[in-house]
Amino acid sequence: MKRPFVFINGAMSADGKISTIERKQVRISGTADLARVDALRAESDAIMVGVGTVLADDPSLRVKSDLLRRSRKKRGIPDNPLRVVADSRGKTPVDSRILGAGCLIAVSGSAPEENVLRLSERCQILVCGDDRVDLSGLLNRLYKMGVRRLMVEGGARLNWSLIKEGLVDELYVYVGAILIGGRDAPTLVDGAGFRADFPALELLGVDPLDSGVLLKWRIQK
Amino acid sequence: MKRPFVFINGAMSADGKISTIERKQVRISGTADLARVDALRAESDAIMVGVGTVLADDPSLRVKSDLLRRSRKKRGIPDNPLRVVADSRGKTPVDSRILGAGCLIAVSGSAPEENVLRLSERCQILVCGDDRVDLSGLLNRLYKMGVRRLMVEGGARLNWSLIKEGLVDELYVYVGAILIGGRDAPTLVDGAGFRADFPALELLGVDPLDSGVLLKWRIQK
Repeated sequence: MKRPFVFINGAMSADGKISTIERKQVRISGTADLARVDALRAESDAIMVGVGTVLADDPSLRVKSDLLRRSRKKRGIPDNPLRVVADSRGKTPVDSRILGAGCLIAVSGSAPEENVLRLSERCQILVCGDDRVDLSGLLNRLYKMGVRRLMVEGGARLNWSLIKEGLVDELYVYVGAILIGGRDAPTLVDGAGFRADFPALELLGVDPLDSGVLLKWRIQK
Repeated sequence: MKRPFVFINGAMSADGKISTIERKQVRISGTADLARVDALRAESDAIMVGVGTVLADDPSLRVKSDLLRRSRKKRGIPDNPLRVVADSRGKTPVDSRILGAGCLIAVSGSAPEENVLRLSERCQILVCGDDRVDLSGLLNRLYKMGVRRLMVEGGARLNWSLIKEGLVDELYVYVGAILIGGRDAPTLVDGAGFRADFPALELLGVDPLDSGVLLKWRIQK
């Protein structure tokens, strides 16, 4: 089944945490890394997050740089990439910053009708999968809509589900010059975890950036 | 209070895990990294782990290379650095590989006498702290015994306790070309975690090694 090129971008502390045990966002990266992430967004056709990230961080997922937005416009494409939420039960709050034109919520058949109706006034809705969002099917639908390059910005559960299903091509991890600690602090890839057949990676690049370092990996098939 | 130079050395997957959710060891690093760790051991006066690591992995913590051991002997020091276990309750099993001459178990006043007696036949015992091992006091005792360079090889809880108390100077993290995942998989620094005043690091070095990369950090005071 055809799908876009999929890459995950994330930032973690030197000890592998993406936020505190209270799930509070911590400034892990600096201005150069934030500019890099903005450029990655501008080069993507769509950006996807899981509903957990919407609930925890309420990201807007738009391109911040005027210059990059104008450059997209010149290329005849919308200012911002399509914003996609994997949200099996339709739990995205109606006042989320991610909503509005250019937002697509992927729900499953199990999402309560009232949630879907409420959200459908603020964005496109795509039903995909029975109990949970069928990620492989969703990626195929995105491909058919013209998405060739999909950026995934977490969270840890969506990253896990995509990796487990073999749907991720590359992984960019900014390792920040900070320690967070905590047995229950979220990490880049959570979920059930692998017990065997661990996905092997190939190191594509190592770039010191701000006070940390950006590691680029390809996931081997 | 005077203490040795303390560094933590560890290996984690690209997503920040040091073992699986079942706490099973995974081969994260390759032969070049194992040789690097062996050399780090040979250059240290003592190597410390927490009792959790002894129980989970039963490490010997000796220098593996004949050459490095001979080189130590030529310098007039023992083949192997002192092996130290932080073990508040004296739970180290008496058949642990770490035991024998050149091993010191640091217990607290709360360790059952029978445990201490049993262990005292296989190693040196040092009582340090009332309910839990007083790490700052232990490091001072080690300093007085001549230890100037202490290598810490985990686990996640000991790393946390040492970092929280400001007792660590440097942190060397080998990031392996593998994904492990898992919400409950152990990471490099577990424990309660920081909620604020996150320790800031300085990146000392970035060295691609085997299929992964070694990151060296200094913990800022």
